[in-house]
Amino acid sequence: MPLIECIPNVSEGRRAAVVAQLADALRAVPDVRLLDHSSDASHNRSVFTLVGDAASLKAAILALYDRALPLIDLRTHEGEHPRVGAIDVVPFVPIEDVTMDDCIALAREVGSAVAERFEIPVFLYEEAASSPGRRNLEDIRRGEFEGLQAKMAAPEWQPDFGPAAPHPSAGASVVGARMPLIAYNINLATDRLDVAKKIAAAIRYSSGGLRYVKAMGVQVTDRGIVQVSMNLTNYQKTPMFRVFDLVKREAARYGVAVLESEIVGLVPATALIDTAAYHLQLERFGPEQILENRLRRGPE
Amino acid sequence: MPLIECIPNVSEGRRAAVVAQLADALRAVPDVRLLDHSSDASHNRSVFTLVGDAASLKAAILALYDRALPLIDLRTHEGEHPRVGAIDVVPFVPIEDVTMDDCIALAREVGSAVAERFEIPVFLYEEAASSPGRRNLEDIRRGEFEGLQAKMAAPEWQPDFGPAAPHPSAGASVVGARMPLIAYNINLATDRLDVAKKIAAAIRYSSGGLRYVKAMGVQVTDRGIVQVSMNLTNYQKTPMFRVFDLVKREAARYGVAVLESEIVGLVPATALIDTAAYHLQLERFGPEQILENRLRRGPE
Repeated sequence: MPLIECIPNVSEGRRAAVVAQLADALRAVPDVRLLDHSSDASHNRSVFTLVGDAASLKAAILALYDRALPLIDLRTHEGEHPRVGAIDVVPFVPIEDVTMDDCIALAREVGSAVAERFEIPVFLYEEAASSPGRRNLEDIRRGEFEGLQAKMAAPEWQPDFGPAAPHPSAGASVVGARMPLIAYNINLATDRLDVAKKIAAAIRYSSGGLRYVKAMGVQVTDRGIVQVSMNLTNYQKTPMFRVFDLVKREAARYGVAVLESEIVGLVPATALIDTAAYHLQLERFGPEQILENRLRRGPE
Repeated sequence: MPLIECIPNVSEGRRAAVVAQLADALRAVPDVRLLDHSSDASHNRSVFTLVGDAASLKAAILALYDRALPLIDLRTHEGEHPRVGAIDVVPFVPIEDVTMDDCIALAREVGSAVAERFEIPVFLYEEAASSPGRRNLEDIRRGEFEGLQAKMAAPEWQPDFGPAAPHPSAGASVVGARMPLIAYNINLATDRLDVAKKIAAAIRYSSGGLRYVKAMGVQVTDRGIVQVSMNLTNYQKTPMFRVFDLVKREAARYGVAVLESEIVGLVPATALIDTAAYHLQLERFGPEQILENRLRRGPE
């Protein structure tokens, strides 16, 4: 069964009754499951985690706009987190039996429907971006809601869908498709922060390392060790095993051993199974050989 | 959701209409899924693969006996495969959110119910065995249906449940609990069969190797290489990564490299995830961090 994750970020994290109404609207959509939602008062922002197929997620996102628009007005919204819209960001993430292209198509379809039905400008980002300059969320969001009117006056900031100016109360929305993130830390058997920082610099994309790695060296003060703290933004193209082996090799350069690694939060099973397949030198292996996948498929 | 696999082996593999009736009886049980069934005419035997929780699998097995007993008579049954019963073997295998102890308890419960309702003697085997001499299926089955009356006259072959003599037409049943098997082959970059045989002897339990490994050295004639062909009978206690690394080390002793490995048929995801966790030196990692597990759990 095709499974897509969608994580809408909404600019309301203080009024619990409003957040509850939004959650109710999402739960009421058939074939969508609301796995989680959390609100941050200082950010004044809530994050909802949904899973479903393309059609049901589209219905859920439209239901979310329907409920949220009368309740959220960015003209009076304050919070620490940058935002351009009442429904600020809507990423679609391929999970199972679905490709990135499917998620890009869904982002375009939902973006177009939102623009048409609610008269809100929509910018496509990440894998769904219409040009390289729009891939990064931070570039689209720079200037925030307050600067949006001026920003959109420039021809290069015309939206991908919808009106050429912000919606009065809801601003704009950023809709897109991306891979699941893996927050991955490797702990080193040393307290030398300079080593962790050098390794981070060696492996991260921004300073010449692997394409889908963001990394920094940090202290784990309560344990007297240091850590290479990473975000892996595409585990299919930059796999975990390669990142681990490269960090281990760079550490050896300084006479330092890897103590352990840790995954913060969730990881797709495939990222670990790919790692096992690499180390076991597995050939002729496919996901249909995973017992649990077989068990979950329908009856004979 | 607790998920148990059950693979009843039935002594009928020639009359398609009978096998179809048995499959129908299993499909009619609520909350059980019949994933697969296959029949072998020369063995005169059929294997059904079911999944479900404990209560539904118990109902399914009782329904199977109900339907099979009037249709199968071992007094006229012939086939190459050894058997003591019309319903010959019923193993329960823990898959997800369920322990081996749960499966042992289920084997005892089903064995007791079968004995009481159908007056069939039941022997418990493998992890559910009541003594070490009854762990091996082959020991229980030695002498087959034809020798069962004489065998059960001995005090050490009294059944765990039910009457002290075989059922006239259905013989006895062997019910138990075991781990899923992994059929795992490691191909060597050589055509030297003696090397594959020496490695197999070094790593298998029967000649002093790892506890849950059966292994032999064989030729892969069409490719001009040799293979260490294995069954891993408990991947939790003798994990795949240790088997692979030991084979690789033994091969190096003869100046031979590992070309690749392959999994024949199904493998539990956990066996591969454990392998990834070993190589990544993962700490503080649990199955609740696997995205797919989280997604499959119920809604918030």
